[in-house]
Amino acid sequence: MAEDYSQESLKKHKELKGKLEVNVKAHLKNAHDLSIYYTPGVAAPCLEIAQNKELAYDYTIKGSTVAIISDGSRVLGLGNIGAEAGLPVMEGKAMLLKELANVNAFPIMVKSQKAEDIIQVVENIAPSFGAINLEDIETPKAFQVWEQLQNIGIPVFHDDQQGTAITVRAALTNALKVVGKEWPNLKIVMTGAGAAGLAVAKFLSCLGHDRNVCLAPKELIIFDAKGPLNSLRMDLNPWQQELLQNIQPKNFTGTLKDAMKNADVFIGLSAPGIVSKEMIQSMNKNAIVFALANPVPEIMPEEALKAGAKIVASGRSDSINQVNNSLAFPAVFKGLLQARAKKYTKEIELVAAQALAEYVKKPDENHILPDRLDKKAVDYVAEKIAEAIQKEQLE
Amino acid sequence: MAEDYSQESLKKHKELKGKLEVNVKAHLKNAHDLSIYYTPGVAAPCLEIAQNKELAYDYTIKGSTVAIISDGSRVLGLGNIGAEAGLPVMEGKAMLLKELANVNAFPIMVKSQKAEDIIQVVENIAPSFGAINLEDIETPKAFQVWEQLQNIGIPVFHDDQQGTAITVRAALTNALKVVGKEWPNLKIVMTGAGAAGLAVAKFLSCLGHDRNVCLAPKELIIFDAKGPLNSLRMDLNPWQQELLQNIQPKNFTGTLKDAMKNADVFIGLSAPGIVSKEMIQSMNKNAIVFALANPVPEIMPEEALKAGAKIVASGRSDSINQVNNSLAFPAVFKGLLQARAKKYTKEIELVAAQALAEYVKKPDENHILPDRLDKKAVDYVAEKIAEAIQKEQLE
Repeated sequence: MAEDYSQESLKKHKELKGKLEVNVKAHLKNAHDLSIYYTPGVAAPCLEIAQNKELAYDYTIKGSTVAIISDGSRVLGLGNIGAEAGLPVMEGKAMLLKELANVNAFPIMVKSQKAEDIIQVVENIAPSFGAINLEDIETPKAFQVWEQLQNIGIPVFHDDQQGTAITVRAALTNALKVVGKEWPNLKIVMTGAGAAGLAVAKFLSCLGHDRNVCLAPKELIIFDAKGPLNSLRMDLNPWQQELLQNIQPKNFTGTLKDAMKNADVFIGLSAPGIVSKEMIQSMNKNAIVFALANPVPEIMPEEALKAGAKIVASGRSDSINQVNNSLAFPAVFKGLLQARAKKYTKEIELVAAQALAEYVKKPDENHILPDRLDKKAVDYVAEKIAEAIQKEQLE
Repeated sequence: MAEDYSQESLKKHKELKGKLEVNVKAHLKNAHDLSIYYTPGVAAPCLEIAQNKELAYDYTIKGSTVAIISDGSRVLGLGNIGAEAGLPVMEGKAMLLKELANVNAFPIMVKSQKAEDIIQVVENIAPSFGAINLEDIETPKAFQVWEQLQNIGIPVFHDDQQGTAITVRAALTNALKVVGKEWPNLKIVMTGAGAAGLAVAKFLSCLGHDRNVCLAPKELIIFDAKGPLNSLRMDLNPWQQELLQNIQPKNFTGTLKDAMKNADVFIGLSAPGIVSKEMIQSMNKNAIVFALANPVPEIMPEEALKAGAKIVASGRSDSINQVNNSLAFPAVFKGLLQARAKKYTKEIELVAAQALAEYVKKPDENHILPDRLDKKAVDYVAEKIAEAIQKEQLE
């Protein structure tokens, strides 16, 4: 599919020479303007902020600006293409933030691909920004980077993890409404235990959440390339082990085909074509199939439907129910900035997923998520997030 | 003077909530636009750049964007106010770059004030930028940071050093034309041996320059707070020592009053009020006095004129001949980006100073520099810089 767009994309990118620009909000028309926005007048806001750092949100770009950070180590499906080559994607993310959420975002590509260097850079550049969006950093490094940045005084969000988890949970929430199934009875099978897969599995199983507000499935079986995660495996990383502690069953040793029998939900964040018609046919009635590998899904949507799935979603823009982070992260950042949040929390994650789901008033088989360019959906979700944070701050 | 503007400045800054915004150059109106500027089409420029990093200048913001870096350790005359509090000034610098040179600039405040951390951050964020502007970092740390960043693949300019040096050399070049004096006969006295003072003295004495193209004065005596730099002093830092190797006399031990006798030029980048009428009166005929301490100069311009100085300049916007970096750094960055320069060099510095001087067709006592909001001056200097770099690249 990329082929169809590549020539036009190269041409347009070359014409623009960068998709972003930094503009001034007030023009410097004369010496008086210089004296107000620059010297000597600018000393006044500087001194105010020196007394109270919180005032940076009032007087500077901090409160309206997000840094998009990537080392280019796992960009789209292109692999480790490096800092410079990842820049067009990060500029694209900044475009989405601006166009959908009116959030200013600046892409910072990090040359070093060492976790400690990325952490050092983000900690040090935090003063200019209201929030950080980590993007396209390979796992498990991405987990380590994200975790170690949770207490730097501004929220740090990892789109591949939290953005995907929010979007998938919202989509599944609405799919369950359509088919009339309840979380506590569900059997979910997943493929892919990288950044996105693990984050989705953690959120679906309510890891770290208050179980009174976050509903989890009865069973969740998750596969990586070597098979199902289970307590017999010695090769799991700490994040996979943590997940396994939180789900049932812990000792499943069968194949994907075995797991799919009587499953209610399949979620793929893995590799093209690994799910067969027969597997879909072996699922429970009213099966929900999210085949999200990009650009080629685990099973093509039309095939899954033919095999009897009730609700089908993919990452493809040419199919029904496109599941794409592009609604989640703009809304999250808009909400975080609006509330001047100092940290990203599990509560925010749940509010975001619930709001994104409930924005779709009457979900049906073909409409479990808002349109990916729906700015009203972004505003709705952002408002709910900001409200929740402000409520929390007041308590 | 700052007092007059502070209330209006606070009000305006609060209304704007940041003086900059990041905008998109192309809007995302529909799914097709997303496919071109974002996935899947964006993979095409990514893959091109992965093959050849130089293409980042064609396809991304790199070639049009400057990072303004500061740790807030020496902001204006406010001292070490820290990263957040320095942000309004750096936003102001970015405004000047945009308004005068149409260069996109983004301010990155660095939390750590350790030289090695600042260096690490700049090296690592370089892939997103075409050039780096260091600002308001205390000395001698600033020298170390600047020197160690000279080979990171993009030009690194330290405005307090190079910006001031270019502006002062241009101003002095035209002042000499007005009074009809020649470089090889000059006696120059300077006060201030911090970032700006040392950089000016190095440039005026042609340190590191080709002596066939850079003209130096016969004598240059420079004072810091402890007295004149000379070979008897044991407390000079390596940068002061380097300068001393390059100037005559090396053994001057007198006072400022002694030094000023028969001087042709005084340049102050030091402290308010340290120069008296009598000192000006003791200078040679057609004396040139640049009293650049801000906001209160070494001697007030009108006082220096009354005492017989022929040409007087200060940093004040309310006096004749305002000497301010605001024309130099926008022109330099515009020229560097236009030529896709990989390094900042002495040749660029000299071309910039000469072009800034020669832009003023007929300098007189009251007009030795262009108006500080003159965009044509910026364009002229930028063009000369770009031509020089491109000529160099071809050779």
